[in-house]
Amino acid sequence: MKIITSLALVAVLAAATASAAPAPPASNPADWRDVDPNNLVLIDTKYGEVAVELAPDFAPNHAARVRALIRAHFYDGKAFYRVIDGFVAQGGIGEGTASTASYGKSQLKLWPALKAEFDAPVAKVGTFTTLGSPDLFAPEVGHVNGFPVARDMKDGKAWIAHCPGTFAFARDNSDDSATTEFYVVIGEMQRRLDRNLTACGRVIDGMQYLQKLNRGIADVAQGVIQNPKDQDPILRVRLAADLPEAERPHYQVIKTESPSFAAKKAQKLNPAPQFYHRKPPQVLDLCNMPAPAKRLP
Amino acid sequence: MKIITSLALVAVLAAATASAAPAPPASNPADWRDVDPNNLVLIDTKYGEVAVELAPDFAPNHAARVRALIRAHFYDGKAFYRVIDGFVAQGGIGEGTASTASYGKSQLKLWPALKAEFDAPVAKVGTFTTLGSPDLFAPEVGHVNGFPVARDMKDGKAWIAHCPGTFAFARDNSDDSATTEFYVVIGEMQRRLDRNLTACGRVIDGMQYLQKLNRGIADVAQGVIQNPKDQDPILRVRLAADLPEAERPHYQVIKTESPSFAAKKAQKLNPAPQFYHRKPPQVLDLCNMPAPAKRLP
Repeated sequence: MKIITSLALVAVLAAATASAAPAPPASNPADWRDVDPNNLVLIDTKYGEVAVELAPDFAPNHAARVRALIRAHFYDGKAFYRVIDGFVAQGGIGEGTASTASYGKSQLKLWPALKAEFDAPVAKVGTFTTLGSPDLFAPEVGHVNGFPVARDMKDGKAWIAHCPGTFAFARDNSDDSATTEFYVVIGEMQRRLDRNLTACGRVIDGMQYLQKLNRGIADVAQGVIQNPKDQDPILRVRLAADLPEAERPHYQVIKTESPSFAAKKAQKLNPAPQFYHRKPPQVLDLCNMPAPAKRLP
Repeated sequence: MKIITSLALVAVLAAATASAAPAPPASNPADWRDVDPNNLVLIDTKYGEVAVELAPDFAPNHAARVRALIRAHFYDGKAFYRVIDGFVAQGGIGEGTASTASYGKSQLKLWPALKAEFDAPVAKVGTFTTLGSPDLFAPEVGHVNGFPVARDMKDGKAWIAHCPGTFAFARDNSDDSATTEFYVVIGEMQRRLDRNLTACGRVIDGMQYLQKLNRGIADVAQGVIQNPKDQDPILRVRLAADLPEAERPHYQVIKTESPSFAAKKAQKLNPAPQFYHRKPPQVLDLCNMPAPAKRLP
């Protein structure tokens, strides 16, 4: 019997087939889409490979910048120089750290500041599927092509929400000042950053490797890891489209407008009664309902 | 100027003194309390020491069980056998894994199942300070003695919310079936678990070490790491009260009913206007407003 003790907790939440939970509805293969290799970024860390899907519909110029930086090998050999537990892992050249300041200046001339793409017209970003729940931070939340999205029909804008795994550009105080530095949300959601920075993708695989990164101290130099030797390296960043076809990893993301994803949401709303003695409120939280992604063999 | 690029993001959120953010109000030393060594659990992992503060007001029997298990050296040499990225790190004897099944049976006879302590009478848990924001999962949320707490005055109960860092007991399908296995929330909040499991503490230091733990695969055996060699060990668990006084780490937690914590909340509600071009909604999220804790030298 004790076999269940340690397992029952996930039986419901991980939607695995378990004795303690009803088998989840089989997800229809037609309800998954391939990730375009032009949008598939592969970040090699010393702990493993991280896969990011870019969202050019939301931030075309930032997505294009990511591709250009990759092709210029800008990130190769740089570092995750500012990593704050429960907040973000920030990577790139690390301007401002003593070790890279002069190097940084010469490199950065090549990459002029981008105009902010904090949000996008609703009509440009694809089908929005509402989560059906209220939210503290936006009038509507849901998914677009697998990305966690909030929108406001008053101004007709949609934006990628700062959930765990959201990939975005850091910037200076000016709106239009992002150049090369990126960050990934590695903690609790950071929805207060929504529409204040340009989010242009999300991690679809390998979050656990980012979680292994050495941390800075939030109160010291705002989390920048002071000794460069303690900064974990970005070994290499590649765009899947640039790899020979046979070497490209093949990822799929569930279609968030599909019946399969609707079934997953319904299942989360109605967890196994034999474990959930108190039924949770009938709401879903956006950042707790990430669209499943999988790597095919 | 680019020095700010990489830093401005935290300038506001980490409440550090930075050129880009107004200096936070100095926090009054009288607004901090010492952590009772009887409630201070020290978990040695191979990555570093994790400090947990127990909350006996919320779950007296579970807190007592933790102390008893520690003093019996129950956890020493056990493992984090089920770790799911973005969800929980579960540790203990790992009943149900082939490697420990027989060993587990003999040990577990010593630790009979506990009655659930999913919530506690409001009057028993100390001063509740509201966050002042609405919440999707409970009528009221706020803090009690540094713990993230939700409450419902209709039935007069309060409970520790499943935020990142919340320390709780796993159980079987029955309410009253927790024995020895614990878990810590390591991902996005898991508020759907509130009042369905007994939460009895929170991590006040060392979350980054739990984030380094090897992960299981959520879809395989519900996240239990199949090869015991891949399970990171729990090297040792100690109660600070059992250490010679000179060797005890000294932690303090901000008093969440104090003006200093109120000032931190006000600061988060009103982030630096030179960076936040769009003011975030005037709400705070419980799990994004953890009570600061610090280790004194």
